[in-house]
Amino acid sequence: MSATKHGDPRIQYISDSIRAIPDFPHKGIMFRDVTTLLLDHKAFKDTIDIFVERYRDQKIDVIVGIEARGFIFGPPIALAIGAKFVPMRKPRKLPGPVIRQEYSLEYGTDCIEMHVGAIEKDERVVLIDDLIATGGTLGAAIKLLDQVGAEIVECGCLIELVDLKGREKLSGKPLYILVEYEGE
Amino acid sequence: MSATKHGDPRIQYISDSIRAIPDFPHKGIMFRDVTTLLLDHKAFKDTIDIFVERYRDQKIDVIVGIEARGFIFGPPIALAIGAKFVPMRKPRKLPGPVIRQEYSLEYGTDCIEMHVGAIEKDERVVLIDDLIATGGTLGAAIKLLDQVGAEIVECGCLIELVDLKGREKLSGKPLYILVEYEGE
Repeated sequence: MSATKHGDPRIQYISDSIRAIPDFPHKGIMFRDVTTLLLDHKAFKDTIDIFVERYRDQKIDVIVGIEARGFIFGPPIALAIGAKFVPMRKPRKLPGPVIRQEYSLEYGTDCIEMHVGAIEKDERVVLIDDLIATGGTLGAAIKLLDQVGAEIVECGCLIELVDLKGREKLSGKPLYILVEYEGE
Repeated sequence: MSATKHGDPRIQYISDSIRAIPDFPHKGIMFRDVTTLLLDHKAFKDTIDIFVERYRDQKIDVIVGIEARGFIFGPPIALAIGAKFVPMRKPRKLPGPVIRQEYSLEYGTDCIEMHVGAIEKDERVVLIDDLIATGGTLGAAIKLLDQVGAEIVECGCLIELVDLKGREKLSGKPLYILVEYEGE
């Protein structure tokens, strides 16, 4: 089931543009596919506009985007509000010196990396990703930002899978979302 | 060595913002790192503006971005010109039915995928990536677009490594670039 928030009429349109694909990547998972949103110029533009309206007067220095779908939503927000864009990437993708943070998956661990020097102490950062599920990746991203002394203003995600309780992994940082799904 | 083109004063600034990292990902490779460009709001905005100025009056229906750095540059262009954004991804990342194309690497092969139905016959497409080296990925992307009958207007890349002759892999499609490196 999907619920929409904020009383903003654009949200229903955005929500309707997201496709549900059963049993991906595993049996029993209902995958929320934002590629159909990207095919709809109004839905994509409205999505970016809502984040831009939220962040443009908050003196944000940096938008961080998490590989790979955070790279689609983060840069247009950064460009519109005059912030830097910093990619957090999977291991061995960033060419310069990095700091890294491991996090747990259902089986085993994964890791994200950020370039040393990309973000300075006390810079105001918003973390952008398309979706929060278990919160493992965003939680690791927050630890990386804490390590460099950044001020994390908020995590902004298009979609929250509420039942997976990813919010609890965010070290108390605020989470702003546009569309939430429950009961799956 | 870097050379700049077009007599556009913004190009030198963009070129200066790209960092060179020796011996990545392998010994003897000079890697061109665009993450430093993304840290410079003017350089990033100028880059996007130049592509937008070039494509906005060309009735472009679709911007295709190639994973992962094509996801950073493609969406802001698509949003600005009113086009759809279609991601081409590495295998098993797209959740819906896909078409796929293999291409050769130095050792072995790789593959890119696109969602079935994302692009319709005769739609006018610009392919965006950050860099063309050997042209393997872009060449495969062109074959995927040919398969669905798209009209490929141009490939647009920020950087060309001229000596690797990637242009020759593009089935005669035009290539537009901002910054070129020779002699390495």
